[in-house]
Order: sequence, then structure tokens, then C-alpha cells
Amino acid sequence: MYHMKGKSNWIAIDWGTTNFRAFLLEDERIIARLAEPCGLLSVENKQFGATLQRLLAPWLEERCALPVVMAGMVGSQQGWQDVPYATLPAGAQNLVRGTYTFTTPWGSPAWIIPGVTGNSRYGQPDVMRGEEIQLLGLAQCHPAQEHFALLPGTHSKHARMRQGEIVDFTTFMTGELFSLLCQHSLLGRDLPEQEPHDPSFALGIDTASEGTPFSHLIFSARTRRLAGEIALPHIHSYLSGLLIGHELATVDGGQPAWVVGSSALTARYQQAAGRLGLKLNAVDGDTCFLQGLNSLRSLVQEIA
Amino acid sequence: MYHMKGKSNWIAIDWGTTNFRAFLLEDERIIARLAEPCGLLSVENKQFGATLQRLLAPWLEERCALPVVMAGMVGSQQGWQDVPYATLPAGAQNLVRGTYTFTTPWGSPAWIIPGVTGNSRYGQPDVMRGEEIQLLGLAQCHPAQEHFALLPGTHSKHARMRQGEIVDFTTFMTGELFSLLCQHSLLGRDLPEQEPHDPSFALGIDTASEGTPFSHLIFSARTRRLAGEIALPHIHSYLSGLLIGHELATVDGGQPAWVVGSSALTARYQQAAGRLGLKLNAVDGDTCFLQGLNSLRSLVQEIA
Repeated sequence: MYHMKGKSNWIAIDWGTTNFRAFLLEDERIIARLAEPCGLLSVENKQFGATLQRLLAPWLEERCALPVVMAGMVGSQQGWQDVPYATLPAGAQNLVRGTYTFTTPWGSPAWIIPGVTGNSRYGQPDVMRGEEIQLLGLAQCHPAQEHFALLPGTHSKHARMRQGEIVDFTTFMTGELFSLLCQHSLLGRDLPEQEPHDPSFALGIDTASEGTPFSHLIFSARTRRLAGEIALPHIHSYLSGLLIGHELATVDGGQPAWVVGSSALTARYQQAAGRLGLKLNAVDGDTCFLQGLNSLRSLVQEIA
Repeated sequence: MYHMKGKSNWIAIDWGTTNFRAFLLEDERIIARLAEPCGLLSVENKQFGATLQRLLAPWLEERCALPVVMAGMVGSQQGWQDVPYATLPAGAQNLVRGTYTFTTPWGSPAWIIPGVTGNSRYGQPDVMRGEEIQLLGLAQCHPAQEHFALLPGTHSKHARMRQGEIVDFTTFMTGELFSLLCQHSLLGRDLPEQEPHDPSFALGIDTASEGTPFSHLIFSARTRRLAGEIALPHIHSYLSGLLIGHELATVDGGQPAWVVGSSALTARYQQAAGRLGLKLNAVDGDTCFLQGLNSLRSLVQEIA
């Protein structure tokens, strides 16, 4: 029904904790997109079906029962359905096996792709939900025996792939720590409006690369402010440099690496990497997400 | 007047950002004490004189014009008087030279002891205000050629002293990071009432000692919760272990070390140190503070 004439319309959804994004597609071609601050936290009483129907209403009027493929925190304990994590190594087949299949209240076939769990490079338990789709997409867009990729964000991921399968990954709470320090710590107190400042960002990167323990490292945002070395409007740039530098200090410079995300964020990481002698190839996060989810859609629809 | 008959009454004050503590003394003997949540942040329009007079009123009625010796953030830019930091190496003479002398509105001779600035063990600029008094007191209570001391707190300090002078020190934002993560991060979200739990604390210490990058390390409070390895009421204990473990991982086990503070806090650090094969000798923070401030009082009164 929904893939007659060889062309398929479908809806791709990235439903996270704070944001909701949807794409109306014809195969891989974007017809329309939606972005709303309607993450899981804004959904009351687990009314996920009704919320989604409301969000997608403009698209569903014309084309009812479009297939819906979802990834992200929507598959977590706090989401629509608790979909157990796939384990490492995780490739497309593994994710498809763990995919949750159901029908929406308005009759669309729907799938929620699982996240992935495994041990990080440091032997800690780790989890991701959503980034595994981008990683699959990356490996499809840029085929290679191995990939090492950085996915910066609230909880940045560093992942290694082999033959298109995720073999390990590590989370860094870079974005969340940055927000916490700016908004709630002594370091961010009594600041005027902030402006981006490359030299302060660079100083943060350089300072973080020296192996200084983190809980001491960040205090330099206080002492350099007291000493007049960083102007008040540039404290956030310096803190951003410290946080990204702390994350990038873990990267082995000998391996080629990808950075996956929005152009603003990947450019920032490339700028930081340049100071550290690392080479990061940037790829668009949405492109990877849609590529990865489209390939999974084909597989789950074959089964259905 | 105020040290007739060889005995001197005086007031010692530790005035910080959030708390105010005062001691009425006869030389080194405590006659009375006060503690109020009246840190600098609660003082409006720089009304420090009036605020102090109100806080000390019960003592001033009987004994007017008692000498007042102050330390802590009261000597900072945000305090009563911006008293420039003393530089390293910092001993009693150095602190006395930088002390700000004045008379309170009600006629008491008063002194504000400066803080100390210098480069940390990691080559970063660093500052302290208040801890220098405890360090002087420690060296007087327990004379030795060298001291290495930990002063745990919101901003923990690790200091080295030689011949009674502070030669370097390093700040770790242990207490503040703990509060931030518990109160404002994903890691502390949706937790029931917390209860102390030694095994979770110990697991945090052990996990932090493995050299894992901090922004990845703390994510284990999330993943171990998801995996059911740490019960919900014990997340704070685990985070406390991670934070203190991250701080103690920087300590060289070969040197004898002191830990200066309240009995609750020093006991916690000793417990953590025990797991790491470190030996910490605990000393009471108030005892050190009063000993150090009393010795400085003698010196500044001699000059006055």
C-alpha cells in the first residue's frame, strides 16, 4: 500500500528527551520536516500516541497510515515503549532483531529501533539511543573497513565501527557539563551577555590538553577571570574550550576520525581538533540519520 | 585595654560566601561561638559593618571594642574590603604584611587577613581565602619540616608547606561538582530520598581511581543505575565516591598527608583514602583555624 510504484513515502522520527524532530520522506528525499520542543519530558501521562498524532496531523491528513520509523529516547524506560538495548557488536541486523513493531492509534505501521549498550573503551557500562542510527548511516555514506566517529552533543559519543558494525563506544557528558557550569556553578555567576571569542576557546583547548585533573582544570575559569586573563564576556568560550579539549584529549591522533553533527558543532570540534593536531572529517548528522534509518526501514518492512 | 592582665579577649571570624562563623575567645580558649547563614551573598548594599554589628551584638554589649580578626571571602572583591592576595611562599610574616587594618563603625580594632595566590601543582593560577589560616594552624599544632594537607570542601585544597610556609596549593571543585550533579544534572534526576551507602561509595572510589576521563567517569552513575548495579537511594553515595576518588587519585601515596576539616568530612576522606592505600591523619578544622588566626592576631596587634 505505502510503497506502491517502487517509491515509498514514510516518516522518520528522532524523539529525544527534550526535542522532537520528524521528516516526511519519499525514500531518501526529504519532502517536509518538523522540529518541536516536544521531547519525552513534555509528554504527560504517557500520551505518546495522541501527542504524535497531533504533531504529525498536517502530514496525516493527506496521507494516512504512512509508516513511521522512530529512534532515540522514545524507546527508553521514560519513552513510549521500553525497547531493550541491542548489544555490541551492533550492526543493522542486530538492531532490526531488537526493533519493536506496533500499529499507531490511527493505523500506521510503526517501529521503534532499539538503542545499544556495551562496555566503553574504559570498561564502564555505556548506552546510546539515537546515535546508532547516525553511525549506520555514516558507514553507508562513507564505506570503509573501520570507522572512528565523534558525535558531539549533550552526551557526546566516540564510537568505533568495523565492517559497518559498532564495536565499542564511550560517552562524554561534554554538553551537559558545559550547561551546568555556565548556569549553576560559581564559574558562570554574574556574567554579562556572552560573545564567542576564538582566542579564549583556544586557550581552553590548550589548557585542557595538559592532562590536568578535571575538577582542578575548570577552576581556571575562575582564577583566569580574577587575574584578568579572560574578559567577562568570554568565559563561556573558555569553558567550551576546556570541555571540548577534555573530551578530545582522549582521542588517539594516529587514527582518521569523523565528526557527525550540525555544521556549527562539527566546525567547533574541527577548530579544536586543529589545535591538537587531530584531523576530523565532518559529516552532516541529519544526512547520516536519514540514511541509517532508511536502510533499517527497508529491512523491517521486508520482515513486516 | 583589650589585653590587660596578660589575657586577651578577641573575636575570630570566618566570613565566607554562604556562611558566617564567629568565635569569642580568651586567647585560644573558646568562650562562645556563632554560626549563621549570613555569607557575603546575603549582605545587601555592602552593609558589612552594620551586618557584623548586628551579628555580634550579644558579645559587644558586654565587651565593646573587642579586637576582631577576620579571614575568608570577606577580603575578596565581593567582600567588605578587597584585600590583595599574598603570594607564594606564604607564611605568617607574608600574611601579616598584606593584612588590612581598620576600625569598625563601633570602634573595634579590626583586621582582614589576605588570601593567597600562586601557581598550582599543574601550573594553573590558583587562589585560596581562609584555608591559609588553617594551614598555618596545622603547622603550629603539628610542627614538621614539611606538611602535605588536604582541606576538603566546596573547593578542596591540597597544599604543601615547608618550614611552616605554604609553597604550593591546588584547588579541586569536588564539593561544588557534587552539588551540581546531584541537583541539576540528569544523574540526579528523579531520585528518592538518599541514604548513605558505604558499598556504593566504595564502588565510586574504585571506579574513579582507574584514570577514566571525568566527563565519561560520571556517566557511570547513569549507566549503573540503568543496569540495576546501584539502587536509587544510593546514587548520591556513588557520586560522592566518584568525586572524592577523582580528587584523591591525584595524591602521591608515598607522602604522609593530613586532612583538615570537620570530623564527618575527614572521616569520609579517610575511608576513601583507605581504599586507595593512602594514609590521611585527620585534624580538626576549627582547631587549626583558631590556632592560626590567634598567632596572626599576636603579630598584627604587636604592629598596631
